[in-house]
Formats: sequence, C-alpha cells, structure tokens
Amino acid sequence: MVNQKYLDKAEVLIEALPYIQRFNRKVIVVKYGGSAMVDEQLKRDVIKDVVLLKLVGFKPIIVHGGGKEISRWVGKVGKEAKFVNGLRVTDDETMEIAEMVLGKVNKELVTLVQSLGVKAVGISGKDGGLLKVNKKLSGGQDIGYVGDVKTVNPKILYDLLEKDFLPIVCPIGLGDDFATYNINADDAACAIACSMKAEKLAFLTDIEGVYRNPDDPSSLISELFVKDAKNLIENGNVGGGMIPKLQNCIDAIEEGVSRVHILDGRIPHCLLLEIFTNKGIGTAILRKGEGKYYHEDE
Amino acid sequence: MVNQKYLDKAEVLIEALPYIQRFNRKVIVVKYGGSAMVDEQLKRDVIKDVVLLKLVGFKPIIVHGGGKEISRWVGKVGKEAKFVNGLRVTDDETMEIAEMVLGKVNKELVTLVQSLGVKAVGISGKDGGLLKVNKKLSGGQDIGYVGDVKTVNPKILYDLLEKDFLPIVCPIGLGDDFATYNINADDAACAIACSMKAEKLAFLTDIEGVYRNPDDPSSLISELFVKDAKNLIENGNVGGGMIPKLQNCIDAIEEGVSRVHILDGRIPHCLLLEIFTNKGIGTAILRKGEGKYYHEDE
Amino acid sequence: MVNQKYLDKAEVLIEALPYIQRFNRKVIVVKYGGSAMVDEQLKRDVIKDVVLLKLVGFKPIIVHGGGKEISRWVGKVGKEAKFVNGLRVTDDETMEIAEMVLGKVNKELVTLVQSLGVKAVGISGKDGGLLKVNKKLSGGQDIGYVGDVKTVNPKILYDLLEKDFLPIVCPIGLGDDFATYNINADDAACAIACSMKAEKLAFLTDIEGVYRNPDDPSSLISELFVKDAKNLIENGNVGGGMIPKLQNCIDAIEEGVSRVHILDGRIPHCLLLEIFTNKGIGTAILRKGEGKYYHEDE
Amino acid sequence: MVNQKYLDKAEVLIEALPYIQRFNRKVIVVKYGGSAMVDEQLKRDVIKDVVLLKLVGFKPIIVHGGGKEISRWVGKVGKEAKFVNGLRVTDDETMEIAEMVLGKVNKELVTLVQSLGVKAVGISGKDGGLLKVNKKLSGGQDIGYVGDVKTVNPKILYDLLEKDFLPIVCPIGLGDDFATYNINADDAACAIACSMKAEKLAFLTDIEGVYRNPDDPSSLISELFVKDAKNLIENGNVGGGMIPKLQNCIDAIEEGVSRVHILDGRIPHCLLLEIFTNKGIGTAILRKGEGKYYHEDE
Amino acid sequence: MVNQKYLDKAEVLIEALPYIQRFNRKVIVVKYGGSAMVDEQLKRDVIKDVVLLKLVGFKPIIVHGGGKEISRWVGKVGKEAKFVNGLRVTDDETMEIAEMVLGKVNKELVTLVQSLGVKAVGISGKDGGLLKVNKKLSGGQDIGYVGDVKTVNPKILYDLLEKDFLPIVCPIGLGDDFATYNINADDAACAIACSMKAEKLAFLTDIEGVYRNPDDPSSLISELFVKDAKNLIENGNVGGGMIPKLQNCIDAIEEGVSRVHILDGRIPHCLLLEIFTNKGIGTAILRKGEGKYYHEDE
Amino acid sequence: MVNQKYLDKAEVLIEALPYIQRFNRKVIVVKYGGSAMVDEQLKRDVIKDVVLLKLVGFKPIIVHGGGKEISRWVGKVGKEAKFVNGLRVTDDETMEIAEMVLGKVNKELVTLVQSLGVKAVGISGKDGGLLKVNKKLSGGQDIGYVGDVKTVNPKILYDLLEKDFLPIVCPIGLGDDFATYNINADDAACAIACSMKAEKLAFLTDIEGVYRNPDDPSSLISELFVKDAKNLIENGNVGGGMIPKLQNCIDAIEEGVSRVHILDGRIPHCLLLEIFTNKGIGTAILRKGEGKYYHEDE
Repeated sequence: MVNQKYLDKAEVLIEALPYIQRFNRKVIVVKYGGSAMVDEQLKRDVIKDVVLLKLVGFKPIIVHGGGKEISRWVGKVGKEAKFVNGLRVTDDETMEIAEMVLGKVNKELVTLVQSLGVKAVGISGKDGGLLKVNKKLSGGQDIGYVGDVKTVNPKILYDLLEKDFLPIVCPIGLGDDFATYNINADDAACAIACSMKAEKLAFLTDIEGVYRNPDDPSSLISELFVKDAKNLIENGNVGGGMIPKLQNCIDAIEEGVSRVHILDGRIPHCLLLEIFTNKGIGTAILRKGEGKYYHEDE
Repeated sequence: MVNQKYLDKAEVLIEALPYIQRFNRKVIVVKYGGSAMVDEQLKRDVIKDVVLLKLVGFKPIIVHGGGKEISRWVGKVGKEAKFVNGLRVTDDETMEIAEMVLGKVNKELVTLVQSLGVKAVGISGKDGGLLKVNKKLSGGQDIGYVGDVKTVNPKILYDLLEKDFLPIVCPIGLGDDFATYNINADDAACAIACSMKAEKLAFLTDIEGVYRNPDDPSSLISELFVKDAKNLIENGNVGGGMIPKLQNCIDAIEEGVSRVHILDGRIPHCLLLEIFTNKGIGTAILRKGEGKYYHEDE
Repeated sequence: MVNQKYLDKAEVLIEALPYIQRFNRKVIVVKYGGSAMVDEQLKRDVIKDVVLLKLVGFKPIIVHGGGKEISRWVGKVGKEAKFVNGLRVTDDETMEIAEMVLGKVNKELVTLVQSLGVKAVGISGKDGGLLKVNKKLSGGQDIGYVGDVKTVNPKILYDLLEKDFLPIVCPIGLGDDFATYNINADDAACAIACSMKAEKLAFLTDIEGVYRNPDDPSSLISELFVKDAKNLIENGNVGGGMIPKLQNCIDAIEEGVSRVHILDGRIPHCLLLEIFTNKGIGTAILRKGEGKYYHEDE
Repeated sequence: MVNQKYLDKAEVLIEALPYIQRFNRKVIVVKYGGSAMVDEQLKRDVIKDVVLLKLVGFKPIIVHGGGKEISRWVGKVGKEAKFVNGLRVTDDETMEIAEMVLGKVNKELVTLVQSLGVKAVGISGKDGGLLKVNKKLSGGQDIGYVGDVKTVNPKILYDLLEKDFLPIVCPIGLGDDFATYNINADDAACAIACSMKAEKLAFLTDIEGVYRNPDDPSSLISELFVKDAKNLIENGNVGGGMIPKLQNCIDAIEEGVSRVHILDGRIPHCLLLEIFTNKGIGTAILRKGEGKYYHEDE
Repeated sequence: MVNQKYLDKAEVLIEALPYIQRFNRKVIVVKYGGSAMVDEQLKRDVIKDVVLLKLVGFKPIIVHGGGKEISRWVGKVGKEAKFVNGLRVTDDETMEIAEMVLGKVNKELVTLVQSLGVKAVGISGKDGGLLKVNKKLSGGQDIGYVGDVKTVNPKILYDLLEKDFLPIVCPIGLGDDFATYNINADDAACAIACSMKAEKLAFLTDIEGVYRNPDDPSSLISELFVKDAKNLIENGNVGGGMIPKLQNCIDAIEEGVSRVHILDGRIPHCLLLEIFTNKGIGTAILRKGEGKYYHEDE
Repeated sequence: MVNQKYLDKAEVLIEALPYIQRFNRKVIVVKYGGSAMVDEQLKRDVIKDVVLLKLVGFKPIIVHGGGKEISRWVGKVGKEAKFVNGLRVTDDETMEIAEMVLGKVNKELVTLVQSLGVKAVGISGKDGGLLKVNKKLSGGQDIGYVGDVKTVNPKILYDLLEKDFLPIVCPIGLGDDFATYNINADDAACAIACSMKAEKLAFLTDIEGVYRNPDDPSSLISELFVKDAKNLIENGNVGGGMIPKLQNCIDAIEEGVSRVHILDGRIPHCLLLEIFTNKGIGTAILRKGEGKYYHEDE
C-alpha cells in the first residue's frame, strides 16, 4: 500500500490548484534583496520558488539589488563608501563599480536559474531602453549618479516573456544625457510592475511586514488598505526605512498593480507560501474594498 | 514564525519542480476506467489530478470507458447483456444505448473538470473524424458493432489543445460505412497516444500492476522492458485479462510513446504520485536500455 | 452540342453568385427540429444544405432539439413523460435520459455531416462552458432541471469555426451549481446567435410561417418588422405556440442578429431556397426600415 | 406550396456539393482567349464562372491573350501585321502596341470582375518578376520580341491569392536584358500552372476538343491519357494548330498539374459545366491510369 | 593606407543615419511626372532614388502621369487632342488610348525598378478597387471620362507593401457605372497619400518650388505653413498652374500627411537630397507650428 | 542651383544600393576588439557603422572582448595578471573581475548604440544558455576558468533579432558544472557565426590583414582561399598570433559562414568601407572557387 507520506504530498499539490489557476500567465514582479540575497540557502530557495512560478505558467520577473556587494567592491579598490540621507554618494568611479557588481550579481542569478532548467536572460535598465531616469537629489544636494525612474519601456520584458525567458533586471538606468545612473531596486521594481500592470509585486525584505506599532511585534498587519497605509505614514506610525517602501506599495496599487506584498525573505520559500497556501505571509497592500484573495468568494 | 506545516508544504511544491519541467507542454493520455470511475471520491481525485497536470503546463487528454454503466442501462430497457470471449455482443439497440451512456459519462466528466475551473470539451471518436474503425470479430464470429481502430486523425485534439481546452474522449468510432462502432477504451487510448507520439500513456486500472508471478503479490514489477513484457506473454506468465493490456503497452512504446504506465486507480491521486514523486506506482513499461526516469541522470 | 438541361444548371449556379458573396464568412445559426428531424429524407436534405453553406464559405452552426426521441426513451425505461404548461417536468432520471438522447442525436448529425465530407464536432452547452443557465419556473412552479440561458461563452464555437469544423450543439447547459439543465432548443439557438451577432438565425419548423390571421392560410406574412411582430403578440393575433418563437425572433433582432427566419422544414431544401433564390420561404423578421434583402438595392 | 422550379434549383446546388468540396482552395488556371473574348455575352459568362469559382472557395487565375485586338491597333497606327510560321513578327513598335493593348484588355477584365463584386488585380509577367523569357526563334529566324518562358516566379500570384484577390495575367515577360517580350498566352498559362502545380489548367478555345480523326466530328475524345496524346502527335493524327496546344497539355501533366482541359469557349458557362456537372465538356488530358474524376470512386 | 576618397564616402553614409532612422517603415508617396519622366538619365536617377528608399527600409509608392506620351499616341492614330480649361476632353477612344499609354508607362517603370533588383508591381486605380471616381466637369461642361477621386481603398497597397513589393500606380479609376476615368496624377497621389496618412508626399515637378513673388527667382520659399499657403492662393500671389498643386498640398497636410514637398525633378537625385541631407530642396509645406524636420530638436 | 557637393553625396548613397540589397536581412557577426575599442573616436566610428548596417536592413551582432580593461581592474584590486602561453591564468577572483569588467564594457556599448537611436540588448553567453563551454588547458596545464566553446544555442539571438534589437554579446560561458568561464572573443564570435551560418564574420583587429610574407608590408593578401590559408599555416608563413585567428577563419568558412574578413580596426569606418565600396579592406577568406563578391558576376 502507498504510505501516508506520499498521499500527503499529493494533497499539497492538489491544494495548489486554485492558486495555479488564478495566476496563470500573470506577470509577477519580485524585488529580490536583503538577507535572501546573502544567505546561499535562502538564495536557492527564492530562485527555486521563482522557477516554480515560471514552470506552472506564471510570468515572473526578478528585479534585484546588490548594495552590500557594491560596498565590498568599493572597499576592495580602496575607496570609502559615502552616504547622504541613506543614499549612496555615487561619483564616476563608484558608478562604474556599482554597474560592474550589479552585472555580476545579475549573471549569478541567471546561472542559478539556468541550473534549475529554466532559460533566463539578465538585463539592466539600459538594455532595450528599459529604464530612463532623472537625476535624484538628496535634500537638494547633488549626490552624483543616483536616478529616479522617469519612464519605463517594457517592450524588452514583454519580448523576453513571449519567448519564454525569465527576465532578471538590475536597477541601472540611462539619463537623457546617456549617462549611467544607479536606481534604488525597490523603485525600479515598482516602476516596472506599474508599467506592466503586474498582477503582483512582491518585496523580499528583512522584516516580517508592517506593524501597526513598530514596538509591538504582535501588531503585524496582514492586510492593509491603501487608505490605511497613507494614514500610517501621515500619523508617523511607521519608521523611516519603511516609509519609501510603503509609498512604493501605495503607488503600485494606484497605478494598477493588483496586489503588493511585503514578505520576510528570511523565511524559506516565503514566496511559495504566500502564493500557494492560505497562510498569508507578511503584509498585503490592497485596494480599498477588497478582502485578501484567499478569503474571497469567487 | 511560520510553522513547520507550511514549510513542509513548500518543500513538496519545490520537489515537484523537475517533474513539472520534464513534462512541460507534453501530451499525456490517461485511460480512465474501472473503480476510479465508480467511486465518487476516487473520481474527483483523478479529475483533480488531471486538472492539475493541465494547469502546470502539461497537455492531458482523457479517454474513458463506461462498461458498467452501459450494462446498467441495457438492463433498464429490459435487454440482457451478452458477451462472447469477453467482448460485448453489440446489436443495433445495444450500440445505441452504449453511445448514449458513454455520451452521458463524457459530459459528467466535462462538468467535473469545468467545476474545477478548467475548460473541457467532450468528444467522441466521430467528432472531427477522430477514430475510423474496422469491424472486429471475436474468434471469427461477428459480434456486431465492435470496432478495431483503423486510423486516427488527431487534428481535433491538436486544435482543442492549442485553444487550451482539455479534451475528453469517449471510445466510439465510425466505420467506412459510417456506422457507429464501440471501441475498447484501452485500445482507443493506445491508438490516440500512438498517433500523437504522446509523452506518456497511463492506464488507470483495478490492479496494482503487472506481477512476475500472478499468484505472488510480492512479485509486482516496477519497471518492465518491452522485450521482457513480450516474454511474459509468450511464457504464459500473465493472466488472460492482462494480455491485451500488456500488448497495448508494447504497441505504444514501439509506436513512439515514451513511457506507458499501468496504475492502480484505487490509490487516491495515483497519477500525481506517479508523475510528481520519486515513489513509482504500479508498473512502467519502458524502451530497452532506459532506466525509470527518476533514476536517470539527465 | 450541349443540351439545355446543362445550360440551365449553369444558370442556377450563376444565380447563386450574389448570395454566396453576401454571406461569405458570415455566421448562420440553424435551429433544427420538428418534422425535418424525423423524416429521414428531409433530414438528409437539411444537412446537405448546411454542408453546402459551409463549403461555399459560410459559417453555419446547427442547434438541434430532440423532444420526440426523448419521450420515446423515457417511455422505454417505463417512465411517463409529464408536462406543465408545455414544459417537460424534468426530474433527475428524466434529465439523465434527455442528455443521453440529445447526445445520441448530436452524434447522428455529426456522422451525417462527416459522411458528406465536412468535418463536424458535436458539443453540448457544457463543453467549453458554452451555456450557463438559471432554473426556469413554469408559472411559479418548480418543474425540475429546466433552464433559461443565463450567459453564453461562444469561445468554443469561434475556435471550432476557426479550425474549419462545423459545430453541432445540443441544448444542455450547466447551472451555477454545476447541475445539468435541459434548455429549449429555440432559446439556445437564439442565445447563441445573439452572442455571436450572427448574420442569420433560421428556425426550421413545422409551420409555413407567421399568419396575420391564424385561421386564414392566405394571410402568410413574408416580411415582418419587429414593431409589427410585437403588435401581433400584443393584439393576440398569434396562437400560443408561436408566441415564444416570435419573442425569440424579436430578441435576436434587437440583440444584433441581422435577420431571423421562420422556415417550413417540411419543404425540401428550404434553407437553400431561402438563401440562394429570390423566392422567399416562410416569414422573415426584420429590423424596422429594411426591405427584405433580395429587394434591397445595394 | 413551393413550386417545382425552385426545388429543381435547390437540387442543382446540392449536386454541386462534391465538386465544391473537391476543389476547395485549389489553384485553377484558366487560359482565356478566342471567341469567348470577342463575344460580349460569352465574355460575361466566362467571367461570371470564374467569379463563382472564386466565391465558392477555389483559387482561380486568369491568363488572357488579345491577338485580334493587337492586330486591330497595329492597323490603326498604319502598320501592317506580319507573321512567320504563325508567329507575329514583333518589332519595337509592334511590341509597344502589343503591351498597351494587352494592358487595356487586362484592365477590362479587372473591371468586369470587380463589377461582379470580387476584387481582382491585373498584372503582366513583368510585375513581381513573374515571367522571365528567352528570345524565341521561328525556324531559326529572328522574329523580334517573341519570348519563350524561361522561369516563373509565382510569389506575386501566391501573395495576391493569400490576400484574396483574383489575379489576371497578361502574357508579357522580361528578357535577361530587361527588354519586353510577347509570350503566347497558352504557353504562359501552362508555365504558370506548372510552377504552382495547379489542380487544373483549362484552355478556352474555339474548338470542341481533340478528335481522334480531325475529319470526323463524331470522333471527339473525352479523355486522353498523356501516352495517347503523344501518340496522336507522333502519328500525325492532329492538325497543325493543335500540336503546340496538346504539347502544352502533356507538359503540364508531366510537371504536376492534376488535370488539363481543352474546352469549347463558345458554349456558355463551359467552365462551370466542366467543373460542376457530370457532363464532361471537351477533352480532358489525364495522367496514365486515372479515369476522369467524376468516374472515380473516392 | 585608405585614401581620403573612401573615408569621405563612409562619412556620407554615416550622415544618412538619422534620416534612415526617421523614416524607417514609413509610407512615402512620390508623384512622378514632368521632365523627370522624359529625360532618360533623370528617369533612372529618380527610380534609383526610390529603390534606395525601399532598400533602406522605407515604404515608397510611385504615382505617375503620362500626359505627353498620351498626346503622342492620340496623334499617332490621327486624332486631335482637345483641352478645355487645361483638362483633356476625353471621349471613348481617347480614354482607351490614355489607359493603354499609362499602362505602358507603368510597366516601363516596373521594368526599370526590377532591373535594379527590387520587386515592383504596377497597378491602376482599377486593381483591387483602389480608386473610385465621380465624373468631373470643367466649368460646368462635360468633358468626358475625366474623374475626381471619390474614395480610395488602399488595401491592395498595404498588401503589396506587406509582401515587400514596390507599388507603382497609374491614375485611372472606375466610376460607379464601372466606366473608366482618367484622373489627374497629382490628385491621385494626394488622395492615396491621405488615405494612408503617408509620412511624406513628394511632387516631382518642373519648377524649383513655390515663390513668394512668381516674378522674382530669389523669392523661392523653403518652408510654407498651411495657413500661409492659403494666403498665397487667396491673395493671388501664385500663378494658375500652381493653385491646384498647392491646394493638394494643403489638403494632404490637413488630412494627416506629415509633410508635403514640391521638388524640382530636373535636379538629379532631388528626392535623396531632400531626404538624406540637410540641404532642403524646393518647398516644404508644413503643419502650423512645426519647423522643418532637420531643424527640429528631437 | 544645387551645388556639386550635394550631388556627390547622392552619388555615394546610390553606389551603396547593390550592397544594401545583397546583405538585406543577413546576419553579420562583428568581433570588436583591439585599438577600435580603446580609442574613443574609433569606437564611435565602429558603433555608427554597425548601427547603419542595422538600419539599412542587415542583422548585425557584436561580440566584444575587453582584455586591456580586465588587466587594469585586476591591477586595481592589487592582483597581478598572469599568463601562460598567452592565455590568462584565471582563478576565482580573476574570473569574477573579468565578468564584471566585460559586463561593464557590454553596457557601455549598449549605451552607445542606444544613443544613436537603435535598441540594443547586451547579454553574456550565460543568458538564454547561449554558450556552453569545456575547460581549456594550455599545453596540458590547468589555467583555471578558461573555456572552449562546446555548444551554442542561438535561440536568444534569433529572438532578439526578430524583435528588432541589436544583440551585443560578451564572451563568458557556463561549464557543465555551471561555473563561469572566460572565452576568447575571437572564438566566441566564430562559434556564434557558425551556429547561425552568418553571411559574414568580420574581425576588427590591429593589423592590416594577412601577409604572404610577414616581413614585407607590400605582400598584404586581399583574398585568400581556405586551401591557401591552410598552406600558410602549414608552411609556417604566418606568425604566432595570427595562427588561431586564421584557424577561426578557416573553421567559419567550413561551417557555412559565407565570407570572413580580417579588417584593420584602426581605419575609421573600415566596416562600411568593406561592405559598401568596391575598395576591399584587409583580407577576405573565401571558399575555393569564388572570387571576391564585388567581382562576381551575379
């Protein structure tokens, strides 16, 4: 007789049915960064999740950062990393190093995906004119080659998806002067998700989610309406680092992304758990009037 | 913290990765019959399995029988079912009833699939000229409208698959005289799988698989090469009912089907277990020189 | 010298030119029922007509009934057919028989079409989710599995037409509860024609057409504007059986079908005569302000 | 009641069924010339036939001549037409006139087709590089711009057919020196039919067909195998004008055209009669071993 | 070492880059007539220019006249050409000759293009129903088969461009009565450019361009806004022949053509010079508020 | 009047006609390296040439190296570059730096192309599984992550070309172990050209071409047959650095590339001069029996 272990496995697969169906051929943008990028085991877990999403018929796109690795290489050539208001001061040489390091990280992810049997193509925001930027100031101060996304031309992403590749994007863009600019990876992921009206935008972070009270771990919010998210910011209930992230979530929903998730990248397979089980992970930002999808009666 | 149960679920999904990848866009013909068709719970299990295969990117086709239900309705109109050498003697009226009953079963399966959110289309071998038959004799004796598949025109199946429907086929065909003939469902499934060079042909049966010694339950064969299958038949090691089934398996492999499985339809989710786990179920019939796929080094 | 008979034949073909041109690639829904379904010769005539329409470039769809045959089989299993206000009371078993019988009729038509060299595919309203229904009451009374069409999803029909098949539809649908419901064939044909904005909807009936005075055979109406059709109903000038049929005609025109015809299915090749000659058959229901097409000056 | 006249009409249409089916989407090249081009009524008849063929799904191509009209215009400008061995001596000015006249005839045919509601495009062998020629000598003598077809590039014809136009071709070609050459219309039609492996090539002529004995009107041959056609030529049983025509027929069959017809263009609708009725008109040239198609058992 | 001559050549090609890019896949209608049609060397220059435009990715269409050649042939058959208000009185025979001559000119251009290695197809406004006309009166007087363009059906042009042919159009059209009408070539070119919203419409003429003062050669206008063009006409600053041409330019811009050029066809390669260099040739008619394109900052 | 300078420009464009035509839609692989990569002006010249090739309808692909820049960065992090038999000893860290530097160079080229108005996409041999490698030994010695191309999967290149992007490839590949390997850029370009049966493969080098006698500058070879190239190698007539390059040329021709060029990248616009003028630059390697293309009589 077949033992229970196998039957249980079958049950898990069967439970995945409605989710596989719901996201069939939908674009899912995954901002990949933080611990999940440093820990080798977590890295494999995340990439395996994305590969699975691809194989079961979704259209995932990875946007990755690389901050810590950039700092390491800046140091390696004997420079000191400088920050103003949390933004890296990016002179010519720093920009050159940043582009190289992000390129290297990009190809590592491509390699990892390919080793799992899915064809990936790694590009930067320069390729196919994907990301055009404006120079970003920090408190009115010029901090070098740091850019705000000005326009997104997602043609190259649609083309790669049509040809069945998994696109992996590093957050570099071109200015009108064709100079190279560094872009915050959260911003890049958000802009891309908006331009494609993605079904989902998921941020892999190093926090559990959004708290109603940052000092109270039990106040983690499962579902947050856009209006409430705005209130949290206005009322000063969220800490500094969380504000731009939450703002990205709000922007994405208002630009047509169906759902945004702040996930804890330190949990193995947090992406799969979020998508395939009825156990919500982290915080979901929703349009007003919608309940979380796995509570919906469709 | 996320509890272990959810992490285990994620692991099962991740384990499915290589199988999802292996059978991506491959045609899998499932002969569905026996207990799995009578027991309502098993029926739902089988159909859920097939729906999952569809959703994760495979191209399943169901070929079903309906023998017991036919007998029930033959009785209902006051006729007595007659068999010669295990083949139903099929006069005009019996054929009429058989076609009606198989049509009803066909639409029940369509309904079940649709209720799980996948679009199905139920056809018989008449539709689109799918199955052309010759009259089949039983020991030289005319037993009426019983047919052997003569040609398969799989265009309608390719068309339905292209349009993303799940085809469900009942084993009725047309003679050159455009008369209606009943076809053994195993034979129909085998002929269809051969004409499409299917990746897999799976027979859901009421037995555990093929035994080296029919009297010894411990002699179940996991993997059987075509050559050995032929020997089993020649040496008289398999019982009567098994011979035509085994012959179908041999034919299918020799006509280009990659792998044929005799599965125990009484095990819930036997199809998923066979395809998605490294626990082989039933007997796999293989081309000479190949090990079972999950032992292969690819 | 070529004799006159042949020259006359050529003339008939040449006369067909403008009609062939007018309906090129247009969808024509034919409700097939009544005597034309019982008389074997008339049946062949109707099917030959539809096959010709297909071959000269039209896109015909057959929707058929099967009332008399259903009653025959209900009797065969020892049940008594029951009607309320002309609607069959349809309990579980009756529904089961009705679906079986309609399925059998469906495949007979498929066979007949195929024998004339055109590929047909027979489906029910369950296939591809074609017909969704609400339960229909009869004077407030529950009469079982009798349905009103709620929504039509014509994708399967467009797909089959694109792949060059002739679709043949039997009027069975699914409720929201995925139960099987019987649908009046006139209603099903009308709903399908509306959903596809068909060029023509033709009802093959056992009457000559609509009469201005039901008691006066000479008062047959050739052309009837929607407004006048409504008056006929309101003024009580049409008998009971005709009211729902006329209402279907009115609905179809108002939903975008270009022309609806009530034809006498007892006249051999009535469909061809209607479409290919300047002899109007039966009654045409028209949009206000249009003359009958073969009087139009285009 | 519907009177017999209409029922007879329906019967004629129904009889056309198998032929419509047989030639569906097949290329049929019609060489149009002789009396059928001079008599206005016959002209309309021929063009109506071709338009009907187009509308019922065939892919007709007209190749036309214009000999008499050329002679008329040559005279009009005060030149004398000169012939050597039946071939027009074609100096610069004659060639110029010939091209103009053929162009005019071409557009007249285009106009006639368009007035019947089908889109036509008139081209010469220059357009799209359709016909390349070698200079043709007459008994070793240079007779000017008279060409033999050297190569056919049927791309423009396939493109026009794909775009649903009816192509009308006048027999003018280019030499390797890009000079303009006149081509015999029979030769041009034959070369085009061969290059497209047309289903049919039909020559509209001013004779009833091929005779076994030119002096005996009762010896008209209905079906002629290629081998027998060769014998007729070798044994001197056919007169001078018929030899090149018969040779074209033989070439066409040997190059892959399925059937060639020599039709009497003086019979109204001879094309329709040949294709749509079981009354063969004129002489059919066949591949050895085939009976005429309407005697075949398919 | 490579000498300067070759390096200069490379520079010219490089300078062409932005123009090649700007007009990539854009439709450019060239009205070809006047001296450039009579002088053999200028003719080759114009056709080479158009062929180059085709090869570097533009979609040129030639519309040609043939007035002088028509007069020559009218004379040749002993008729006298008659004009009323500058419009040719076009009786039956004149129309016949005009169509023949334009057809001949058309095929000469086809031949020239083909000799340069590009596939051309020559059509008249009859082909594919391209040009439908109304009879045009001259001061209220019937001058025969002279037509005003009533409608353009550009399908045949789009089809030929899609299939990579260069279309060459002669200005003949059909009336509602299917009679043949002569059309002014400027009018035909303008109507075609409008119907396709062409990027450019260029008139090759025998003048240098539009003058602010027709008596002062130094008053040639390089760029002319639509409003100013209207003023020139209203104020009587342009001579008789120029008025309809200027009106065509105004119409074209107002119907959506991006830019219209009046070029001096007597300058070799005037088309290339206009398109590929920053030396404007002739007069450009522009939409209000736009500077000439090579002064734009894009 | 238009001055001579402009007419000369037009002439140059017209001269380019036959070459534009010859290479329309053909794949041209350009190995870009050496001085042309260091000198900023030469770099712009090369990229402008490639952009022009793209715009006039060719399908260029750039494969670039980056040796000098790699050495500079290896030095920057305080490592010493080590070479064995001219091959860089490539340990883990060197490979990491090499990949980063090549990635940076890649995106600089992408930026330059985009600034000229053409969409480019920069990839490495990892993307889409383009280049799979075997470890390469140097005289039997392991020199680290240096690879020989084992297989090319050009799908990603065909996909990018189809979507109208200009692909720019850096010579990095994956081993079977999914480790990163450096590939000689000449080898990568050659392998890619072979896998796509490119029309042309052009090596931009720092030499004028191949000499019959390396010591005699006047012995530069314009055209070299494969057989003669082999003789040069066997007879020791070519120096060390030239041998592998010449071997690549020989391999390419034998694998189906139509023509290979060794060009002097120090000459501005050497690519354009080679392709668009009848002044051959450098050395062309040809298949036996062919003269250089611009001497051919086609």
